[in-house]
Amino acid sequence: MDRFEELGVAIIEAVKLDDENNALIILDQTLLPNEKVFLEVKKLEDIWEAIHSLRVRGAPAIGITAAFGIYLCTKASKADSYDSLAEDFKKGRDYLASSRPTAVNLFWALDRMENRLKSEKDKNIEEIKTALKEEAEKIRQEDAHVCEAIGQHALSLLKPGWGLLTHCNAGTIATARLGTALAPIYLGNAKGYDFKVFADETRPLLQGARLTAWELKEAGVDVTLICDNMASIVMKEGKVQAVLVGCDRVAANGDAANKIGTSGVAILAKYYHIPFYVCAPLSTIDLKCKSGEEIEIELRGGDEITSKWYTKPMAPEGVKTYNPCFDVTDNEIITAIITEKGIAYPPYEESLSKMFEK
Amino acid sequence: MDRFEELGVAIIEAVKLDDENNALIILDQTLLPNEKVFLEVKKLEDIWEAIHSLRVRGAPAIGITAAFGIYLCTKASKADSYDSLAEDFKKGRDYLASSRPTAVNLFWALDRMENRLKSEKDKNIEEIKTALKEEAEKIRQEDAHVCEAIGQHALSLLKPGWGLLTHCNAGTIATARLGTALAPIYLGNAKGYDFKVFADETRPLLQGARLTAWELKEAGVDVTLICDNMASIVMKEGKVQAVLVGCDRVAANGDAANKIGTSGVAILAKYYHIPFYVCAPLSTIDLKCKSGEEIEIELRGGDEITSKWYTKPMAPEGVKTYNPCFDVTDNEIITAIITEKGIAYPPYEESLSKMFEK
Repeated sequence: MDRFEELGVAIIEAVKLDDENNALIILDQTLLPNEKVFLEVKKLEDIWEAIHSLRVRGAPAIGITAAFGIYLCTKASKADSYDSLAEDFKKGRDYLASSRPTAVNLFWALDRMENRLKSEKDKNIEEIKTALKEEAEKIRQEDAHVCEAIGQHALSLLKPGWGLLTHCNAGTIATARLGTALAPIYLGNAKGYDFKVFADETRPLLQGARLTAWELKEAGVDVTLICDNMASIVMKEGKVQAVLVGCDRVAANGDAANKIGTSGVAILAKYYHIPFYVCAPLSTIDLKCKSGEEIEIELRGGDEITSKWYTKPMAPEGVKTYNPCFDVTDNEIITAIITEKGIAYPPYEESLSKMFEK
Repeated sequence: MDRFEELGVAIIEAVKLDDENNALIILDQTLLPNEKVFLEVKKLEDIWEAIHSLRVRGAPAIGITAAFGIYLCTKASKADSYDSLAEDFKKGRDYLASSRPTAVNLFWALDRMENRLKSEKDKNIEEIKTALKEEAEKIRQEDAHVCEAIGQHALSLLKPGWGLLTHCNAGTIATARLGTALAPIYLGNAKGYDFKVFADETRPLLQGARLTAWELKEAGVDVTLICDNMASIVMKEGKVQAVLVGCDRVAANGDAANKIGTSGVAILAKYYHIPFYVCAPLSTIDLKCKSGEEIEIELRGGDEITSKWYTKPMAPEGVKTYNPCFDVTDNEIITAIITEKGIAYPPYEESLSKMFEK
């Protein structure tokens, strides 16, 4: 039992190492919200499949899974020299890297594990294996600390009893634990803040309905699911005192790319004079990217809008669709950007770069 | 072939009288967008069922169906005196009135038919039947004229080649023909305006995806279906030059109630400096209602959000939901309200009441 459980707040972890059984315990997010199944995954093929099939999702959670995965793979190696161990590592690394070729965190975590392997070259095999376990654990812990720090900073901006609105899923199951935008909610509720949370369902992939509503409900948070187009009325009715969202990439000027629909929520918040907070680990802040105009928006297939999830298509056959995955929120309507190093306020050109000097 | 068909613009009619065959031809909207089926409905029971089961929907279209229905019912009567004809009429009227007890237009149309019946009391049976046919046809034609007048006024605000965004369905299949918010699109395209239309899917009931995208595509309009939360990005990308929506009720001060999500679209349009037009027949303008605060918002069941349309539930079992059916758009962010009598601009207290004096 950890301190959240002691406080009666159950925080689900998307992926955990069960070293004794040479296994990863992975929450199968493809079965949510209808079934809560923790897979015991031992074979490298199954870890590959878990990442590939989105059983584990969210950039930090994918990185952590890959790090633990390459550790377990190396641990199982029968190699009796560094070179043959490194060869087994490389095979496993290349294989895991092919599981989701667009996931930057996957490569980042595997590279970091490889660097650690190389730095331990002169140690004996058992020591090297232990070092890799340490490194994977460190990746997990660092992410947990980032989430908790963001959560604490964000919480300082909120008051007990507030209504909060969030979009998409920037929660515990996408990270080591706590999430980013949802972290202050868990931390606050552990202190009895009793937030009322509104979760946008987040079309077309419904991450808000399937994941955010699920994980908050599991943790005993007072959560209400709404359609994306209901954010305006809940704000107008005075039910929301702050908006909290995660982000995929923040430019040097504070323009923030996040799940499609985020910019709309920010504009509504501005209209209703409600603060709009972006929770952004420093790893998502790209100072080389000057403004949101430089951020390319991924377009996805129209079937996600017209037919995915449905018993039959809900749009006329062959209708044109437009399905951008992200949008960019203008810096001028972001009240603050909350990082693990503190809270950045406008002008973001200055405040964001200062975060990296801390 | 009518003048729209001559121009190559196919405008679908939700309901038509086939007097020769004593039948109504009703587009079965419950089968849209997957099947386009026109039902030939002869029995009063089947007309009742078509209204009850939402095969025909939209306030004007329901009224027209009821008017034609009570005409066909009376036409079939074997009565040889006014009194026995009136008795048959009353039976049919009461029966049809029970098909959808909350539809105001249903009662309005049946009352109007009954008034005509009474005013023809001294005529012979055949003349009375002909008068009822005339009255039903008049109800249909008046609605078609209202739609066309709104369309012409709205069209005067638009330019060829513009991108237009609409929410929900205020189209031809909800009215006698042309619709309200979609009327200028049909009229413009008949003149070669070549509008590019973005249709919000309109969760949770998907009227935009199932109905608007369908009827515009059938008419050869360039329509692109988007999720509600994509309205912001299409506006930001400069794809939209005006927003057109229908409405359910407009207060004397111009506050306008319409399908949930409309107020959010208006706020986005304001932010991006795009004109936002509400298309409102005078019958929807309620001068006795001072402001939007007096408009009660219907709340519906959460299953429409969590499970309707889906192969399995897309939200955790028992999650709280909030499902308001409508929202109110503040008058200050409505660029103009377009009626059949002309275009009303702020301040609406003055301009709307003047519309009734014309």
